[in-house]
Amino acid sequence: MENSCRKAVGVDFGGTGVKMAVVDDQGTILSRGGFATADASSQKDWLHAVEQELHKITAAAGLTLNDLDGVGVGVPGFVDFARGYVHNLANVPGWTGVYLKEMLRQQLRLPAVIDNDVNAMALGESKFGAGRNYDHVVFVTLGTGVGGGILIHGKIYRGAYSTAGEIGHMSIDMNGIKSPEGSGGLEQYVGNRRIVERAVRLIGEGRPTGILELAGGRTDNITPKIIAEAAHAGDPLALEIFDFVADCLAAAFASITYLIQPEVFILGGGVAQSGRVLFDPLMRHLTGRLSPFIAEHVSVIPAELGSDAGVIGAAGLLWTPEA
Amino acid sequence: MENSCRKAVGVDFGGTGVKMAVVDDQGTILSRGGFATADASSQKDWLHAVEQELHKITAAAGLTLNDLDGVGVGVPGFVDFARGYVHNLANVPGWTGVYLKEMLRQQLRLPAVIDNDVNAMALGESKFGAGRNYDHVVFVTLGTGVGGGILIHGKIYRGAYSTAGEIGHMSIDMNGIKSPEGSGGLEQYVGNRRIVERAVRLIGEGRPTGILELAGGRTDNITPKIIAEAAHAGDPLALEIFDFVADCLAAAFASITYLIQPEVFILGGGVAQSGRVLFDPLMRHLTGRLSPFIAEHVSVIPAELGSDAGVIGAAGLLWTPEA
Repeated sequence: MENSCRKAVGVDFGGTGVKMAVVDDQGTILSRGGFATADASSQKDWLHAVEQELHKITAAAGLTLNDLDGVGVGVPGFVDFARGYVHNLANVPGWTGVYLKEMLRQQLRLPAVIDNDVNAMALGESKFGAGRNYDHVVFVTLGTGVGGGILIHGKIYRGAYSTAGEIGHMSIDMNGIKSPEGSGGLEQYVGNRRIVERAVRLIGEGRPTGILELAGGRTDNITPKIIAEAAHAGDPLALEIFDFVADCLAAAFASITYLIQPEVFILGGGVAQSGRVLFDPLMRHLTGRLSPFIAEHVSVIPAELGSDAGVIGAAGLLWTPEA
Repeated sequence: MENSCRKAVGVDFGGTGVKMAVVDDQGTILSRGGFATADASSQKDWLHAVEQELHKITAAAGLTLNDLDGVGVGVPGFVDFARGYVHNLANVPGWTGVYLKEMLRQQLRLPAVIDNDVNAMALGESKFGAGRNYDHVVFVTLGTGVGGGILIHGKIYRGAYSTAGEIGHMSIDMNGIKSPEGSGGLEQYVGNRRIVERAVRLIGEGRPTGILELAGGRTDNITPKIIAEAAHAGDPLALEIFDFVADCLAAAFASITYLIQPEVFILGGGVAQSGRVLFDPLMRHLTGRLSPFIAEHVSVIPAELGSDAGVIGAAGLLWTPEA
């Protein structure tokens, strides 16, 4: 045999698009497919679309269904992993209380595994991306929401009822900003909208900055990316905003480190692409928030797989037992 | 055979006393021994004292050394579990950089396991005490310090370098009280001394309370136990202090729940014996700090083994693989 790798199909079920890929057990993508979530709005249509794409990308990779170990799916919501059950999905209507694993198995006649999309990304990055040399990983995705996934001894740790890793809801200030999930949740300080809100407020207070100019003079156009751009150009307000975001992350990461002591934090998502304006203050604050021995033994690194982490990790679910 | 249980000796190495017991694999103590830590101040003397007691309590249980699976030791400090190495001990001089596991094995000619004392207590309570019906447990001990131990799938989780479970250093306020371990560490709010300090300060501000009278009129005599006594009698200031302690614990427990989702928190140590003046507000605050689905799936219960958790759990180290 020329290629003795195992193969599986990964499905990254997003609010706008469903990405699919044939992936081998080295984390290499052999072929790609997908469809717009809006084009398959019922469960039945969705399963049909997945089936159709499955055949297409399997053939495109020069394989047959017999070559596949199965199909792994990462979904944007709340999953009971053991039962293969979707409690409900954020931003995708019509997916409440669905035995998705069983439905997939019946439709595709292949083994299926489903998990939360952030767990799939965490697995992808940990096995095949930035975390490939680590066994104890905390993956954090920074976007509108802040999500997380935990790998212990190289396996996803899901907690007692499949909801572990909700790093965005960890409190960094017991008397802080309230949300339906509690008080002072990390996401309330470092979620994309909060970062932009902070910039808009400080600009409104008359703080001198080039951020607004980079946004074409309109506060509506300000994004974390624009603030990062300003920070890289040395803009003091932008640097201050990133320093604050970094310190909030450091506060949560210090607590996580004292609790479960990972070897590494891997940061994915848009804000994580900000480079050293984020990572430099983050390491500095994290070190300041840990005792020296503990600080020496943990690091923070950027994700490597970008938007492929989801499909690669979803396929990887077939080959990774639970922690 | 009348009794087919396995047996081991547990050693609970404390700052003032070393407790030892022969324990069976049902968590039952068959015989007890021990010595004052000050009576064996060198490593050599300590090993001899352990050996002497080992023979004594094994005979007292009607056993010989051949009946033992080995010796487990919980030490009050910082251990490298895999290497069986003591980095250093809090409050016990002369124990820095010690390959204790190997020394025990040579001295006693029995298998030996060493771990942090809080991990040993966590294991004891989880396997044989309050946690016996749970697989995912966070054990917290409330005293001068606040320590913790994590059980995942029934096994101790030690983290990448054996220092996981440092719940007392988790931050509940990123801008809170500073310590060598960071800012806003839980222990800085709910450690025994901090609870007493808070009472003394509020009494000094003229708040009406019966606490001082219960302490014989001397602030020096105030202890968390006296404050608990006042709280049980309905003293408003004492109730307020426990409400604050409970809310601080709830803030940390909410973060822990979002991160690793245990089924149960087990509270040990002196303050944990305060009963409903602690547990009622703790459950109320914890519920308020979690989304409803998550809150429904976690509980907080008192430890059951009291000061025996350490020896029982230390013996249990022989029978429990690592998570």
